[in-house]
Amino acid sequence: MNIAVLCSGNGSNLQAIIDKTADGYIPAKIAVVVSDNKTAFALKRAEKAGIETLVLNPKDFASREAFDKEIIKDLRKRKIELVVLAGYMRLLSDHFIKEYGNRIMNIHPSLLPSFKGTHGVRDALEYGVKVTGPTVHFVDEKLDHGPIILQKAIDVKDDDTEEGLLERVHKEEHKIYPEAIKLFAEGRLKINGRRVVIK
Amino acid sequence: MNIAVLCSGNGSNLQAIIDKTADGYIPAKIAVVVSDNKTAFALKRAEKAGIETLVLNPKDFASREAFDKEIIKDLRKRKIELVVLAGYMRLLSDHFIKEYGNRIMNIHPSLLPSFKGTHGVRDALEYGVKVTGPTVHFVDEKLDHGPIILQKAIDVKDDDTEEGLLERVHKEEHKIYPEAIKLFAEGRLKINGRRVVIK
Repeated sequence: MNIAVLCSGNGSNLQAIIDKTADGYIPAKIAVVVSDNKTAFALKRAEKAGIETLVLNPKDFASREAFDKEIIKDLRKRKIELVVLAGYMRLLSDHFIKEYGNRIMNIHPSLLPSFKGTHGVRDALEYGVKVTGPTVHFVDEKLDHGPIILQKAIDVKDDDTEEGLLERVHKEEHKIYPEAIKLFAEGRLKINGRRVVIK
Repeated sequence: MNIAVLCSGNGSNLQAIIDKTADGYIPAKIAVVVSDNKTAFALKRAEKAGIETLVLNPKDFASREAFDKEIIKDLRKRKIELVVLAGYMRLLSDHFIKEYGNRIMNIHPSLLPSFKGTHGVRDALEYGVKVTGPTVHFVDEKLDHGPIILQKAIDVKDDDTEEGLLERVHKEEHKIYPEAIKLFAEGRLKINGRRVVIK
């Protein structure tokens, strides 16, 4: 099974997925790493692992949809069956979501539906929750909203800083994201309304 | 330390608190159980444990505030230092919350801020979360919103029913609610903005 990973930044989740495809844990091949940011460190990681990359500059396109169509053209050519968002900072167009319905995954650093948006860890800390943790979910038209595949709870400590908590959340992300992709690649995820059941 | 427990129904959390004051785990005395419902089973539990009760019918009062003032009169007389809501189905008036600011606790059957309101377990199940669990928090003017004292995460199973999940959430409630009250009674809870720190 061919997967594409879309990144905008550091790509630490990409690295976890690279490692877990390399060692056979995930029975799939990362066929391409796509980025909207040519300076993303994720691209270095891809190159180091011998994975092809596609870099597109949003400024070269008239609209979000035109940009996404260019990506989709590439993904089709590569027969991509799963699109994995890993720190991809652009909203997908409805066109993209329709094209890859229930075949796009995202990871979010809070226990959704709590703390949607770009500061999932900071917002949780400021709210004062005692439990937080990452969520892997399918992507639908609404932000951080699609059916949930895996979540992992971790305790927030009384003296946690944003950096410390972020580090522990990331550590769990690097476990559950490969796990969710593995389950998908094995054909074991069944979507039942909003509930995702593992066969 | 004298505490008051306010109930409207079965009172299974009240029972856990009765048991944990009786065995000395919580260093406090339940001075009164208050109910807005004379048929609440919680009242039977109180009577069996030899705890005084106060039953008031909201229909006998002109307003929410008048009702609450009657309760407060009783609580003052008894020198109540902590008000514990345990399945109390009435919203407290602002007057009540001002009178007992940061000295009113509530328990909610979801990981707040997710799934506020009266169906915390059902809503979580329908949303398809993989992790849920109860929250003990101080009460402020907004529904299910005050500073969080304790939370306990439990896994949602793929074949969970509302009844099955509710039972597991309740089981955890009966542990963390006494624990939170114990910490309060020992003077170990410090509220720092929205964060509650355990000394």
